[in-house]
Amino acid sequence: MFENEEIIFYQMNGLMLGTFAQASLEADMNRGGLVRPGAFALAHNVESKAAVDAAIARLVGAGGTSLRKPDVPPPGGYRGYVADPDDHAWEIAWNPAWAIDAEGRVTFGL
Amino acid sequence: MFENEEIIFYQMNGLMLGTFAQASLEADMNRGGLVRPGAFALAHNVESKAAVDAAIARLVGAGGTSLRKPDVPPPGGYRGYVADPDDHAWEIAWNPAWAIDAEGRVTFGL
Repeated sequence: MFENEEIIFYQMNGLMLGTFAQASLEADMNRGGLVRPGAFALAHNVESKAAVDAAIARLVGAGGTSLRKPDVPPPGGYRGYVADPDDHAWEIAWNPAWAIDAEGRVTFGL
Repeated sequence: MFENEEIIFYQMNGLMLGTFAQASLEADMNRGGLVRPGAFALAHNVESKAAVDAAIARLVGAGGTSLRKPDVPPPGGYRGYVADPDDHAWEIAWNPAWAIDAEGRVTFGL
């Protein structure tokens, strides 16, 4: 993890997640007027239905707001959504057709 | 890649990128009123300054709108921003301190 006054970078599995102060992101992007909640979600895939419930409970316990209590989407599996304190949406999902390897990499499947 | 009427999934390096029809995302998330441009950017890291210019040119040629022409951010490196036709921001960045391995995985560095 790296942190300064403008951004925190988290080393993820093959990518970085950065949480940018909004004014700093707007300055870097050269565009103001960014709005929330934006038309996106960050999804975190886990390996079981129980792990979805546990992660959602942990996020809500840490100050998140439940948007959708976990249930079964049309293709199957199990997922719920929580808004973080900045109103960004996080999906926590278990999809039995999607493989998650030992290093946490997710592979699409049907 | 997987595509239906609601979503397209792209297999990325260890994760999935999904482009969701907004109404379908709102139904799945159980929250309406998502707005654009949202307070986020998707960043794609490349291995050279020339690759930043090439990627930005390709995105603009495909219908993207330049937000910031590539230049040098305060920490060094080189980056620009393009809005896609749905007004989502994409950053294309070269950061010489960030390693990119043969499989495209990015590791933070200073």
